[in-house]
Amino acid sequence: MAKTATPLAEETRDRLLAVSTATLTSQLFKRGLRRTFMTGLAPIRSDCARFAGPAFTLRFVPAREDIDTLELLNADDYPQRAAIDAMPEGHVMVMDCRGEMECGPAGDIFVRRLEVRGAAALVVDGAMRDTPEIAAMDFPVHCRGAAAPFVILSHHAVPDFNQVVACGGVAVYPGDIVVGDAEGVVVVPRHLADEVAEAGWEQERMERFIQMKVSVGATLVGTYPPSEAVLAEYRAWVEAGEPGELNR
Amino acid sequence: MAKTATPLAEETRDRLLAVSTATLTSQLFKRGLRRTFMTGLAPIRSDCARFAGPAFTLRFVPAREDIDTLELLNADDYPQRAAIDAMPEGHVMVMDCRGEMECGPAGDIFVRRLEVRGAAALVVDGAMRDTPEIAAMDFPVHCRGAAAPFVILSHHAVPDFNQVVACGGVAVYPGDIVVGDAEGVVVVPRHLADEVAEAGWEQERMERFIQMKVSVGATLVGTYPPSEAVLAEYRAWVEAGEPGELNR
Amino acid sequence: MAKTATPLAEETRDRLLAVSTATLTSQLFKRGLRRTFMTGLAPIRSDCARFAGPAFTLRFVPAREDIDTLELLNADDYPQRAAIDAMPEGHVMVMDCRGEMECGPAGDIFVRRLEVRGAAALVVDGAMRDTPEIAAMDFPVHCRGAAAPFVILSHHAVPDFNQVVACGGVAVYPGDIVVGDAEGVVVVPRHLADEVAEAGWEQERMERFIQMKVSVGATLVGTYPPSEAVLAEYRAWVEAGEPGELNR
Amino acid sequence: MAKTATPLAEETRDRLLAVSTATLTSQLFKRGLRRTFMTGLAPIRSDCARFAGPAFTLRFVPAREDIDTLELLNADDYPQRAAIDAMPEGHVMVMDCRGEMECGPAGDIFVRRLEVRGAAALVVDGAMRDTPEIAAMDFPVHCRGAAAPFVILSHHAVPDFNQVVACGGVAVYPGDIVVGDAEGVVVVPRHLADEVAEAGWEQERMERFIQMKVSVGATLVGTYPPSEAVLAEYRAWVEAGEPGELNR
Amino acid sequence: MAKTATPLAEETRDRLLAVSTATLTSQLFKRGLRRTFMTGLAPIRSDCARFAGPAFTLRFVPAREDIDTLELLNADDYPQRAAIDAMPEGHVMVMDCRGEMECGPAGDIFVRRLEVRGAAALVVDGAMRDTPEIAAMDFPVHCRGAAAPFVILSHHAVPDFNQVVACGGVAVYPGDIVVGDAEGVVVVPRHLADEVAEAGWEQERMERFIQMKVSVGATLVGTYPPSEAVLAEYRAWVEAGEPGELNR
Amino acid sequence: MAKTATPLAEETRDRLLAVSTATLTSQLFKRGLRRTFMTGLAPIRSDCARFAGPAFTLRFVPAREDIDTLELLNADDYPQRAAIDAMPEGHVMVMDCRGEMECGPAGDIFVRRLEVRGAAALVVDGAMRDTPEIAAMDFPVHCRGAAAPFVILSHHAVPDFNQVVACGGVAVYPGDIVVGDAEGVVVVPRHLADEVAEAGWEQERMERFIQMKVSVGATLVGTYPPSEAVLAEYRAWVEAGEPGELNR
Repeated sequence: MAKTATPLAEETRDRLLAVSTATLTSQLFKRGLRRTFMTGLAPIRSDCARFAGPAFTLRFVPAREDIDTLELLNADDYPQRAAIDAMPEGHVMVMDCRGEMECGPAGDIFVRRLEVRGAAALVVDGAMRDTPEIAAMDFPVHCRGAAAPFVILSHHAVPDFNQVVACGGVAVYPGDIVVGDAEGVVVVPRHLADEVAEAGWEQERMERFIQMKVSVGATLVGTYPPSEAVLAEYRAWVEAGEPGELNR
Repeated sequence: MAKTATPLAEETRDRLLAVSTATLTSQLFKRGLRRTFMTGLAPIRSDCARFAGPAFTLRFVPAREDIDTLELLNADDYPQRAAIDAMPEGHVMVMDCRGEMECGPAGDIFVRRLEVRGAAALVVDGAMRDTPEIAAMDFPVHCRGAAAPFVILSHHAVPDFNQVVACGGVAVYPGDIVVGDAEGVVVVPRHLADEVAEAGWEQERMERFIQMKVSVGATLVGTYPPSEAVLAEYRAWVEAGEPGELNR
Repeated sequence: MAKTATPLAEETRDRLLAVSTATLTSQLFKRGLRRTFMTGLAPIRSDCARFAGPAFTLRFVPAREDIDTLELLNADDYPQRAAIDAMPEGHVMVMDCRGEMECGPAGDIFVRRLEVRGAAALVVDGAMRDTPEIAAMDFPVHCRGAAAPFVILSHHAVPDFNQVVACGGVAVYPGDIVVGDAEGVVVVPRHLADEVAEAGWEQERMERFIQMKVSVGATLVGTYPPSEAVLAEYRAWVEAGEPGELNR
Repeated sequence: MAKTATPLAEETRDRLLAVSTATLTSQLFKRGLRRTFMTGLAPIRSDCARFAGPAFTLRFVPAREDIDTLELLNADDYPQRAAIDAMPEGHVMVMDCRGEMECGPAGDIFVRRLEVRGAAALVVDGAMRDTPEIAAMDFPVHCRGAAAPFVILSHHAVPDFNQVVACGGVAVYPGDIVVGDAEGVVVVPRHLADEVAEAGWEQERMERFIQMKVSVGATLVGTYPPSEAVLAEYRAWVEAGEPGELNR
Repeated sequence: MAKTATPLAEETRDRLLAVSTATLTSQLFKRGLRRTFMTGLAPIRSDCARFAGPAFTLRFVPAREDIDTLELLNADDYPQRAAIDAMPEGHVMVMDCRGEMECGPAGDIFVRRLEVRGAAALVVDGAMRDTPEIAAMDFPVHCRGAAAPFVILSHHAVPDFNQVVACGGVAVYPGDIVVGDAEGVVVVPRHLADEVAEAGWEQERMERFIQMKVSVGATLVGTYPPSEAVLAEYRAWVEAGEPGELNR
Repeated sequence: MAKTATPLAEETRDRLLAVSTATLTSQLFKRGLRRTFMTGLAPIRSDCARFAGPAFTLRFVPAREDIDTLELLNADDYPQRAAIDAMPEGHVMVMDCRGEMECGPAGDIFVRRLEVRGAAALVVDGAMRDTPEIAAMDFPVHCRGAAAPFVILSHHAVPDFNQVVACGGVAVYPGDIVVGDAEGVVVVPRHLADEVAEAGWEQERMERFIQMKVSVGATLVGTYPPSEAVLAEYRAWVEAGEPGELNR
């Protein structure tokens, strides 16, 4: 069901890491995509929130005592454990925990393993445990909050991985490009990633210019969105090498 | 992942249709199963709420404009449409719509088709549309409420069917026995169905006796749970053919 | 902590059963009482919702596996079981279950015992189980909804009874007069019951007159609230024996 | 701000009263309108829920003790009271109470006045009081639930009327056509009313035909949405006078 | 509808900036005002949360595709853009977004313009976008959280400005004095501002004294609220020039 | 109802202060206790969140204007004020405010008094006021958020103290050991405290070892949970004095 997942170009990744999730949702909205930003998630550390990479998904369902036995969970091929070794470097693990806040599906050892495996980030539609320890790592984790109780056996089971899931009200297909910053997480369809990264980068350059105009007193009317005159001024500013001060 | 699904014996089905979901959750709790009753669902018609049958599941994720095009949705093999023809007679269709209340994943034509196909019931973790028309049919539908807007294209997509899903906070594995009454819906693991149906039927016979005792003035202490003396009295009552009046 | 609880006069009870909870909240608001109506509760049967009687309270806390053992629960003096026999006739049992919806603290046998004991009603800040069976009885039960799972051992414990509790956001002191109708439940302080019953009865007589005026075309301005002229007309109508047709 | 409000044609009103809100949301979605169905509202009586008429809006804000004095509220020109006399016959009063459930902005006398004034319905984004009495009238009221406490002075104030408001997550402009049935309430922009009524009526005729096909065993694939062959069959059925039995 | 808005005295503003919102709600409660603190809002930066100034309000309703076209939104006199230029210096922009969390009604360029215009703060009953960028500015913004998606066209429309609105469950009349600190936002009616600022300042001086007493071991009984003896001690402390150490 | 409360051993307290709440919930789950972590609470300051001590509980019910008069509240023996002086040193005050967020039951003076009295922490199932001032103290307070309005008279009353209460969905018996860290708060039954502290301390030593293994590339399979080989390696590491680098 996922679109073909050609590797993400270095330049695209760099641009996605440089533009905000707000800009990306605007670019996606222009292309007809309305539900792209995950509602209700936040980074554990706002100063360690930026990431961009292809999605690798994990699906959780409520636990069942007759099925989710200790034997099953400790099996080497249990999906949650198997997934982490199947996930290629640079990917973002996305866990669909259906928004449950009473327990955390993973803790600091799991996050350390993700980090060692070269993962880009962890995104959880639910709570995380060991959040104080995770806050001390330099690895971006976005989730709905903190909950100490462990989940396996009592709350969650993992039936499969790398299927399309829902996270924060957004569909995530394996291979979609997931991007995060301190505001939250946005999902970019794989086939739009290059185009949206480029257009987002352009939009932010323009907005930097508009910010400079507004900072020195320009009214929003005429400036944001820009009039033809302001657009011409902008193009001149770009050609002039984007000087830090406006020539008033 | 689902346990083997031998056909449900006629006697088991009859007993499950005769006992309440309250009794079944008690029997399952005794066997170590804690999350078996779907929270937040109710029948559209309280006088058309009873059913029992194996689960046939449908999973929904949020729609995505670049994937869920009209072409895809109108394809003959679109999972939601394909599922209804793949579902064997007597089964219960369980739709995991993640609790979304802004739209309904199905309406009266879909329900009519389920009825014609010999389905036992429809259970939806979300809203339904055409609820006034469905209330006029004699087919049990349990859901979270009513919402007129249709979902395909704007809200939901159906990536697959007959996978384990979550519904009302409970895991549903294809083939699990789903039972409903006016109180709500309970999930009985397939391999426990015979045992639980039998034990539930016994429990309700005992509770009918206790109700008769309490109705004529017995205190709860000693009667509920029953003392040894009351148990003896009960056994005598059963042997006497369960007379409608107690011999005081 | 409860005010002295002199028996409720027959006339007061009759009047409380005749006026609506809407009228009673207005009368209590006039006397400075703002939080008197229970938010979120509804009768299981809207045609079996009316009651009035002194409160007898039961407090629930979350269950704890090391304390709430089967032995404790089956003891004859376990508070939930003891309370029902300690409760005087004509009282209303009020259960503070902290709004929990995942399980029901009582079912049909418990309600039958309440009925046999001459209780006036059962009011539950949470769900009830066996609601289809209870809907077939003629005993008023107000609660937040239906949930089949039983609670003792897994969810709730009962540490004491006849203490002040919270129910639907309202304080309930033992002996307070609790009144219900199809709209919901209101708590009347014991010492205000006679006065509020009388004033409410008067208010409704006036509102019947206003309804008649409005039904034949009177504007709200001048009529509701009534002008001096309408008040005079009202007094004449009362003196004339409250005729069914207005003398226009 | 409202579009010009030419009177609603008799034929349009009749058709809107005959089609379901589910059909209307589909027709509006086809014309690019996504947020048209009010989420969370339900009729007080499901058998007295149908209506169609132009919106007449009332806006509520939280009460303020220094402004919303008894004097102000009893003034003849207080907006809530003035509005009811300013509202033309056949209109639907829409009250934006911001979803508040702790009190009701109006009760049975207000509803009686609406009925006498020839209003089509009352739609409230919040609770209503006197719901048992209103359930005994033959006047459609849709709201979020019941709450006995009155609101003026303690909860709500009415700063103005006939301004654009929000109700159930939908914008309502004065003059918009508001339509209700047992499922809920939909808002139809005035300038689309004729077109949508006509198209909705056509859609439901087609769906009646599809229902008949499905009832006798047609698969959803090919029938719903209809294939070219089924469309031809449908047109023949219409030309044949829509016979009650299908010619198989 | 707003009370006359004489300019806010420098001294009053200074005192409002020096007392906490907790103290102000207490002072307003003493004067009969109960709903004055906005529930659910928090500053984007707790170290940039203090402000005081007259309210300038903006009202949002759900967007409608047939009305809120790109042409309308880009018009020079669109209310959201017009409002920012109409707002006098030192005012607080209050946006009633009905608590919606799926999108942000404004971002960093809008906030920069507010800052350049000399606004005192921005208060939003909903989410904000560009929150990481806003967190880097020195301008107080209080809201419900972060959401990257832009709203105009898809979610919100702005029908008018400087009307009474609701924000965090509190009525805000244009010209009301809005005060914020790290705890949240309180609304002070314009005509009470001087009095409440003065009394709040007095209250906090007394509480500083009580804090000193409690810090060296005074019991709450007798000290908080203060007995006559403690009051006398307090007055002596004030006369002595409020020394930093208590004379024990 | 509470288990006997022998004083907490110094060593147990030290160990509880050294292990995480995540570890403690795991240890309690192993001993059959499922509901031990308070859902929805967080520390006001994440860097001042650690504490461990016996519970001293305070119960709140909604205020009632005819009972909770100013005279009662100012009485020297009002439970909230009396409790603080009755509470032994080193205890944790637990306030059951039923999750109410509209007001705070206590502020900075109350917290200062707790600190002076040698309390270990304050845990509130509701909001706190004066949170900016409390954030400047070095005293751990966990709650649901901030709300400036004071509660007594308008919202809460305190009927008793040191009874079993509910807090964050967990039962708290007086004398239970309450432990907090930046993740939240866990309740340890008094009689399990020594055992759980010891086992938790052991578990964390093992997890430090596993973290080291994972940090240098060990897969989760075989390492977490540890295989027999890894367990042997772990025991060797312990015997070697827990060296900071693994001998690979």
